[in-house]
Amino acid sequence: MTPDSPTRTYRRLSIEERRSQLLIAALELFAHRRPEDISLDDVAERAGVSRPLVYRYFPGGKQQLYEAALGSAAEELQQCFDEAPEGPPTRRLARALDRYLAFVDEHDTGFSALLQGGSVVETSRTTAIVDGVRRAAAEHVLRHLDITTPGLRLRTTVRLWITTVEAASLIWLDEGKQPDAAELRDWLVEQFVAALVATAARDTETATAVRTALALETADGPVASLARRVLPVVGDAAHLL
Amino acid sequence: MTPDSPTRTYRRLSIEERRSQLLIAALELFAHRRPEDISLDDVAERAGVSRPLVYRYFPGGKQQLYEAALGSAAEELQQCFDEAPEGPPTRRLARALDRYLAFVDEHDTGFSALLQGGSVVETSRTTAIVDGVRRAAAEHVLRHLDITTPGLRLRTTVRLWITTVEAASLIWLDEGKQPDAAELRDWLVEQFVAALVATAARDTETATAVRTALALETADGPVASLARRVLPVVGDAAHLL
Repeated sequence: MTPDSPTRTYRRLSIEERRSQLLIAALELFAHRRPEDISLDDVAERAGVSRPLVYRYFPGGKQQLYEAALGSAAEELQQCFDEAPEGPPTRRLARALDRYLAFVDEHDTGFSALLQGGSVVETSRTTAIVDGVRRAAAEHVLRHLDITTPGLRLRTTVRLWITTVEAASLIWLDEGKQPDAAELRDWLVEQFVAALVATAARDTETATAVRTALALETADGPVASLARRVLPVVGDAAHLL
Repeated sequence: MTPDSPTRTYRRLSIEERRSQLLIAALELFAHRRPEDISLDDVAERAGVSRPLVYRYFPGGKQQLYEAALGSAAEELQQCFDEAPEGPPTRRLARALDRYLAFVDEHDTGFSALLQGGSVVETSRTTAIVDGVRRAAAEHVLRHLDITTPGLRLRTTVRLWITTVEAASLIWLDEGKQPDAAELRDWLVEQFVAALVATAARDTETATAVRTALALETADGPVASLARRVLPVVGDAAHLL
């Protein structure tokens, strides 16, 4: 950073602006390095302010700053899930996943460090923030399936798909972001369709939700494409029917 | 425990027998209470020996005893996966899952505490033991699919199903072991079939593995049953084909 870069100027900021500036600096650092490798000096330098000023805003030090940055990242992530309840459900899911995967791409190291656990800054509060995001994700999915009070089987299927998305994101980061985000997104949508259809085979509530969702899908959409590619794979198994 | 119960007698045991006796006592305790709620006194009392004797075998105290007990549980768990490579693959998977779910049922509290993380006894060594079990599970599944060097897509699908099994087990414990273990087992098998078929739709290696596996399935088996129950659910979606 050069001495005259914009963030180094000490222009007067309101309390909220200053707090937000420090959180942005912290998020940028926590995104690409593990929390244990970041000091308050790094945050101060990144924001172009003094260390005491960081302490004035976050008297709890790095732990408080980390939790505030995580809370702010969690809000950003939850905004990824917002999607109008219109059009084929798999299209909505694909758009939300695009935004989610862009977030994962942007916060790669911090995302891995947070979710792989064992970090020095992990507390019951950070766990609660992460669980809140998972719960919000599941609620969004169920809302798009027009379900308000899901039974155990449907609820579990959705929760497990959220777990799959999270674990797949970690594997994706671990594999150097291979395959590309668009393929990962399409594959995650297909895995959701497959999981839901399999649960529908033993749960009437899920079967109704699947029928309703399928009626909104189109012949040029992801479900139709999946069906056309699945049929040749299972086509030889006529002995099972 | 009464004073004259067998484990209270101080009969001479070999070093290995004594060590094994202490591990069994520790495992019984760690299975049903969180590690932080167990003291070495509890272990000594359970095994019917003195506290110094426990320390003689485990000079590292509770941490060392916990890791040794976990290693012993991990071996037990890996034995659940052993299954002859004969017959319909879903039957083999169902039998391995039966043994796995019996293990989860038996070690319920310890299983949850271990996998939900944040425990005081969690270290890089305990994480490595758990990861070793996950890796072994994935290798077993791939071996039954006749795959030795899986590509990224198939490898990821299997790893994510292992994650699903683990997460489903935690939800199952959390929901008071509902639905019953047999239904959970059948549902996990069906979810695996669905995930694999969906991946086969975009990956030739997986498609070959699925075709080979389907040829070994029978008309009275789990895949046929799933197919018969899926068809009515998707039957109305002819507009997609």
